[in-house]
Amino acid sequence: MPLSPGPFTGRTVSGLAQDLREGRTSAAELAKQALDAVAELDPHLNAFVTVDPEGALAAALRADEELAGGTDRGPLHGIPVGVKDLIDVASLPASMGSRHFAGHVPAADAECVTRLRRAGAVVVGKTTTHEFAYGPTGDRSAGGPSRNPHDPARMSGGSSGGSAAAVAAGMVPLALGTDTGGSVRIPAALCGIAGFKPAFGAIPTGGVFPLSRSFDHVGVLAADERDCLAAYGCLASTRPFEGERQVRVAWLDPAELFAGDPRVVDAVRGVSGAQDEVRLPSGVAEALQETYTVIQSCEAAAVHASRMVHAPELFDPEVRERLRVAGELPGWRYVQAVERRVELGSVVAALFAHHDVVALPTVPITAPPLQQREGELDGRAFLVRAALLALTSPWNVAGLPALTVPAGTVDGLPVGLQLVCRPGQEPLLFEAAALRATSAA
Amino acid sequence: MPLSPGPFTGRTVSGLAQDLREGRTSAAELAKQALDAVAELDPHLNAFVTVDPEGALAAALRADEELAGGTDRGPLHGIPVGVKDLIDVASLPASMGSRHFAGHVPAADAECVTRLRRAGAVVVGKTTTHEFAYGPTGDRSAGGPSRNPHDPARMSGGSSGGSAAAVAAGMVPLALGTDTGGSVRIPAALCGIAGFKPAFGAIPTGGVFPLSRSFDHVGVLAADERDCLAAYGCLASTRPFEGERQVRVAWLDPAELFAGDPRVVDAVRGVSGAQDEVRLPSGVAEALQETYTVIQSCEAAAVHASRMVHAPELFDPEVRERLRVAGELPGWRYVQAVERRVELGSVVAALFAHHDVVALPTVPITAPPLQQREGELDGRAFLVRAALLALTSPWNVAGLPALTVPAGTVDGLPVGLQLVCRPGQEPLLFEAAALRATSAA
Repeated sequence: MPLSPGPFTGRTVSGLAQDLREGRTSAAELAKQALDAVAELDPHLNAFVTVDPEGALAAALRADEELAGGTDRGPLHGIPVGVKDLIDVASLPASMGSRHFAGHVPAADAECVTRLRRAGAVVVGKTTTHEFAYGPTGDRSAGGPSRNPHDPARMSGGSSGGSAAAVAAGMVPLALGTDTGGSVRIPAALCGIAGFKPAFGAIPTGGVFPLSRSFDHVGVLAADERDCLAAYGCLASTRPFEGERQVRVAWLDPAELFAGDPRVVDAVRGVSGAQDEVRLPSGVAEALQETYTVIQSCEAAAVHASRMVHAPELFDPEVRERLRVAGELPGWRYVQAVERRVELGSVVAALFAHHDVVALPTVPITAPPLQQREGELDGRAFLVRAALLALTSPWNVAGLPALTVPAGTVDGLPVGLQLVCRPGQEPLLFEAAALRATSAA
Repeated sequence: MPLSPGPFTGRTVSGLAQDLREGRTSAAELAKQALDAVAELDPHLNAFVTVDPEGALAAALRADEELAGGTDRGPLHGIPVGVKDLIDVASLPASMGSRHFAGHVPAADAECVTRLRRAGAVVVGKTTTHEFAYGPTGDRSAGGPSRNPHDPARMSGGSSGGSAAAVAAGMVPLALGTDTGGSVRIPAALCGIAGFKPAFGAIPTGGVFPLSRSFDHVGVLAADERDCLAAYGCLASTRPFEGERQVRVAWLDPAELFAGDPRVVDAVRGVSGAQDEVRLPSGVAEALQETYTVIQSCEAAAVHASRMVHAPELFDPEVRERLRVAGELPGWRYVQAVERRVELGSVVAALFAHHDVVALPTVPITAPPLQQREGELDGRAFLVRAALLALTSPWNVAGLPALTVPAGTVDGLPVGLQLVCRPGQEPLLFEAAALRATSAA
């Protein structure tokens, strides 16, 4: 049974911004609503690991004073935000979802949090992450799994599962996440909200605990793509061009990447707005997945090598076993993968030769039950982790901006449409999302 | 017993250039002298794997015609040159010192050979390389070891052993080599000539068979440092600044990198021209060597992974065993080494805080007998390969320009003074070398 909607359900950041400026609400009131919603709903969802009522209320009062005094910091001014627990917020615990960092309190904000505060946003608390962000299921974390608001017995997806659950449940209108292979887009899709992974490097990763430095991205989660765009505009180092033209969208048949649930694929294709179809050349899907796995595994094993020697018992057993296997991959495969990544960049770029945006499902299945590791489709067994990552990780390999937006439901569970573009073409990406919204509405 | 000196012994590139322009010799005569010397001396030294009499004479005649017609291509115009067999020369076999490439004939010149020809140089032939440049001893090559002109029972050093032996024996006045951990400087020092490894990337590596892409450099070998500078000027993509000032030279005690032969260290220090001393901070020597070994091993294993699966029997057994071990290094160590390399860059840069040039021995021992793999110094055993590489490979990790110049003999065998500077400071490096020449003369 779905939970009762939180105070931000059905409200957008832009709508809240208008309400704030026209006196219909205050930042303090929004912060209180968020804190009350967390108190009421979070026992069912475990989206938050730390809540900061004093800090949030103080920041909200400052935001109100500034607005009253004529200082307007823009679209996020006074907006309550959740921050993934992998991202440093000064004076709040940052556990990384792991017992290794129990009691760890960073002294300084991550660069993206600094930018969030500079934009006037109000940090409500820290959201659940899969341990060290090393898993797309979101159900292995020192503080327990985050849960899907559409069915708390199911996964939120991960690793930014708490951020997705918090927004989807209406506890906050906006949250920060990180995305190494899909960790923003996967939980956003499974929870029925929007999530945006920008181009590689577009939002700085300083103060964010690394998973795989070649692929780590900071991203944003919100109810719809316009809110993601507003937040992105406040966080990004550079601005994309502002020109607009008719966006050309091509459907990418996901079958070569993963043979998913045909009901999911059909539902997504129906709202994709695609006029044409493009295909990956033969062998490229495997090369993208191999490249992703090898680079991510070696880099994650490097990050955790010392912990694996000195305190392996503090890891979640599944995460530990993955790190053990990752630690055995030989270096020459990493070297070859780094070289292949460069070659794949040109292959992927060719998908955009005649189109601005490539559309495909974000995740080829709906949210599995918590802790499920194998599933079955048409009598064929599949690994849940592979299914969750199959359609998102290629765009981390290529470093391309990728957005997921809600695309209806299958069996009452949300599915997501993923839209991908080249760096610098982000306005067309959001335009394509808006077209979908129009046609799907 | 040393061999009789070849026709270019005691002659410099600049002297030959003057002779050419003043009619005392011709490019054709120089080419014939080189070809005759190879025919006479090379059976004792195995410096060349391929000689190209027709190509060399044709190129020499063109060079003479151009000079006669008023086209002067500069300091290398008409100069005979040997090219390491790892570097593509169009229409000449390129064996890489390996049976894997028996009969392989590249269609095009490597970029550095194109530049060499554009400068008017005359390619005489291809010089022996340690198999795939994977060894500093120079004595494992499909066509047999190159030998040291000062004692043909001893190593030339490697991997550019043929280039060093050819110049040291006076067969050619100039040769190209490659240097991944010391492969230009080590054989130059052991054979008693000059060798220059420029800054990383200063000479393009296109058309050069890779050993370890992060560390591979093209370099030059000649009788003295002025000839290296002249050749470097024709091959480099950019020119260093031209300003001159009093060069500040600091001695770097090599003991932390390798406890070498004290007679070698004393001989080199005596001619170093150093006014001060600098030291590596504690732990840095080990970190430099670990970083070099891990990155080089993983990258070499990546280059040869397919050959190790499909035709391992074609490798020299020692090279194969090294590749096997290199292939087992885990990827996370490579990832950590790449990160550490960046940190070490700052540490090494600090050596130059108050000095322009750092001086140390090039190799801490004299040339060992061919095939020797372990030696003894003061009752302590050492590995020959480690000894040869110990003082040169740190500058490949840092990507710094490094020059070796003759620094006398110990027991009748040559020793080299190594001079290192920051990129852009090359003129000071050569000035420091000239000061040594003055004081040593």
